[in-house]
Amino acid sequence: MRFSRGRNFLFRVPEGEELLSYINEFAERNNVLIGTASAIGSLRNPKIGYFNENAGKYRVINLEGTYELVSLSGNISLKGDKPFAHIHVALGDPEGRLYGGHLVEGEVFVAEVFIQELLGEPLERKKQDNRLVLWDAEKI
Amino acid sequence: MRFSRGRNFLFRVPEGEELLSYINEFAERNNVLIGTASAIGSLRNPKIGYFNENAGKYRVINLEGTYELVSLSGNISLKGDKPFAHIHVALGDPEGRLYGGHLVEGEVFVAEVFIQELLGEPLERKKQDNRLVLWDAEKI
Amino acid sequence: MRFSRGRNFLFRVPEGEELLSYINEFAERNNVLIGTASAIGSLRNPKIGYFNENAGKYRVINLEGTYELVSLSGNISLKGDKPFAHIHVALGDPEGRLYGGHLVEGEVFVAEVFIQELLGEPLERKKQDNRLVLWDAEKI
Repeated sequence: MRFSRGRNFLFRVPEGEELLSYINEFAERNNVLIGTASAIGSLRNPKIGYFNENAGKYRVINLEGTYELVSLSGNISLKGDKPFAHIHVALGDPEGRLYGGHLVEGEVFVAEVFIQELLGEPLERKKQDNRLVLWDAEKI
Repeated sequence: MRFSRGRNFLFRVPEGEELLSYINEFAERNNVLIGTASAIGSLRNPKIGYFNENAGKYRVINLEGTYELVSLSGNISLKGDKPFAHIHVALGDPEGRLYGGHLVEGEVFVAEVFIQELLGEPLERKKQDNRLVLWDAEKI
Repeated sequence: MRFSRGRNFLFRVPEGEELLSYINEFAERNNVLIGTASAIGSLRNPKIGYFNENAGKYRVINLEGTYELVSLSGNISLKGDKPFAHIHVALGDPEGRLYGGHLVEGEVFVAEVFIQELLGEPLERKKQDNRLVLWDAEKI
């Protein structure tokens, strides 16, 4: 789907906040219903998910300690009647090795977040056959 | 080079499509000649490339199974007379370990893609001395 | 903070340049005071940092050889009276394994960079209690 461009937000999340909840709450308070998100920083004890296709559910990986937030990318759309952020992250350990997946939670040490709002028809997540909650696919 | 901003596309690629071909075809059908691309999702049996400077060619790494698409970043420009997507990806295995490189191919389980079109003078890839097909470099 | 959108730059950095200095110099010469940055390409002998919370300083990891630049994400804001790029990178070795963290330096083999300028009130980095130089945090 095609969208026009809305507001642009660039900000630092306060230390100690849980990052995923913060982004969701930021979107809700600012009424960002559709958009993209990116960030860099550093997270404490992040939990990431790997979606197991056969099992039809997430396997959660608990990382302990503080990790560099090397990349965060994702989007905001509607799930139910609220904005919902779907976010993937890459995380670096003290040796520079990277881990990553679907962001489940992570405590902010530092997070510099960029959110760009998109405007247009509602983009909604719905339960799909593969047990994930996704937008309808776009055929070309 | 400096560009103005064109259209914004945020969409889900249908399950089973090959992601790189899909992005290229999407750009061609929508006449996106210059732009940037990002995405998250999950890919089956992705193949990634590492460009070996000395050999002057890509080494292809075949990953087996389903991987989280932790980041996808890249751009669209002209190669010959068609839009061409140059894309790098980070991919997570069930333990959360990341692999990545130049996207050669990958079957979509889930892919949520954001493409932003840029408008301006043609940005073209040409064969360079280092055996890669690149834009002319920009000196500052 | 909320910003409006400025100029869009998409370009290739000449081979042999040091990437972080180049981005900083590009921002300064083009008077980009606030913005976001992303890139893909390939870097030689990159150095990346892991910020050790307890020690209050970066541990520098020296990678040898040529690595795929799988993702680069970050932002530009003011530090002192100059634009300053804060950049994190993910880097792939010949086996496709990823390493990454805070970009300290890296020699460009290939770098295709996208910078989007943001316009608004000055966004400034200041020394914070945690010994990092950050923007004031945004409470919601």
